[in-house]
Amino acid sequence: MITVSVKTGSRKDMIDVTGHIKKAVSEAGLSNGLAVAYVPHTTAGITINENADPDVVRDIIAHLNKMVPPDGKYKHAEGNADSHIQASLMGSSVTVMVEGGSPVLGTWQSVFFCEFDGPRNRKLHIELIEKS
Amino acid sequence: MITVSVKTGSRKDMIDVTGHIKKAVSEAGLSNGLAVAYVPHTTAGITINENADPDVVRDIIAHLNKMVPPDGKYKHAEGNADSHIQASLMGSSVTVMVEGGSPVLGTWQSVFFCEFDGPRNRKLHIELIEKS
Amino acid sequence: MITVSVKTGSRKDMIDVTGHIKKAVSEAGLSNGLAVAYVPHTTAGITINENADPDVVRDIIAHLNKMVPPDGKYKHAEGNADSHIQASLMGSSVTVMVEGGSPVLGTWQSVFFCEFDGPRNRKLHIELIEKS
Repeated sequence: MITVSVKTGSRKDMIDVTGHIKKAVSEAGLSNGLAVAYVPHTTAGITINENADPDVVRDIIAHLNKMVPPDGKYKHAEGNADSHIQASLMGSSVTVMVEGGSPVLGTWQSVFFCEFDGPRNRKLHIELIEKS
Repeated sequence: MITVSVKTGSRKDMIDVTGHIKKAVSEAGLSNGLAVAYVPHTTAGITINENADPDVVRDIIAHLNKMVPPDGKYKHAEGNADSHIQASLMGSSVTVMVEGGSPVLGTWQSVFFCEFDGPRNRKLHIELIEKS
Repeated sequence: MITVSVKTGSRKDMIDVTGHIKKAVSEAGLSNGLAVAYVPHTTAGITINENADPDVVRDIIAHLNKMVPPDGKYKHAEGNADSHIQASLMGSSVTVMVEGGSPVLGTWQSVFFCEFDGPRNRKLHIELIEKS
């Protein structure tokens, strides 16, 4: 298991971590199998989406804030209930296939660490499973 | 890794792809392990839900359109920001267990490719991991 | 594959199932790899979030009911369309890494079985994949 640090820049932020996954696969010399990226936090998530137009990420964040308003009425007293709910909507891990030594991503796909209660210094775990 | 084609029929569509996964498991002769189905697109996703009553799928699509309106106000200029957001809500992959040569699905479960910006010809990747 | 029973207590409920995953890993003697927990139902899901303050879970349930109202207008005639939609929003499985014989969870993370149409007696499947 590899653990990398992810520095986020604002309360809601999406950071492209595709490079970390590619590097982990390459350094481990994994040819074929799976790469799993896992977020060990409860106010952050992970998702796969487009990184060509930065407006896509802006729309995702803006709309998650519309569906789960930061200033909504919640019971959790720490003021970050919205962050917990958004984290569960995005999920804690993504699984990507590895073929011929590289992660198999679609043309427009990048893996994004989703910060929902930043800015913070976060961790991302990456595990590689070889296809037997 | 197996790649299959999925032809979708409308802008928002859910296509049962369970048969593709069963066939991949059967043809590979996998007895026990995991089957991962992965969508290499950023305006499509994948989910597991009921295929007995087609109204379930209709309700899922209708409600995703209510939560993330196609005619909402977004920055992304291509007119498919709703599709990107819906894709992240459903996710890019599902993982299913394989036991005794078959995917382990609940009585009512089917795997659905979720089209959010169709109709299009799409791809679905399937990877099988044997339990050692 | 291990299957455990999960008894849920109300129509919408989140049950901490982390102990089942830890026990499965420990009993199998798995040192390093992945643990996948899978829900074989279409009106229940699974997610990872905080179990320190029970208000977090209450907020997640309350907000899912706000985004997908149980008394909304749906086509599915069984009266549980909300449960199906909420199940797809949370997802059917979680993947957790295993290192040194234990699941790797963040300080605040627990794995929750999400009941969206209970109370019922449910099943949860756990599969362990060893890193070769």
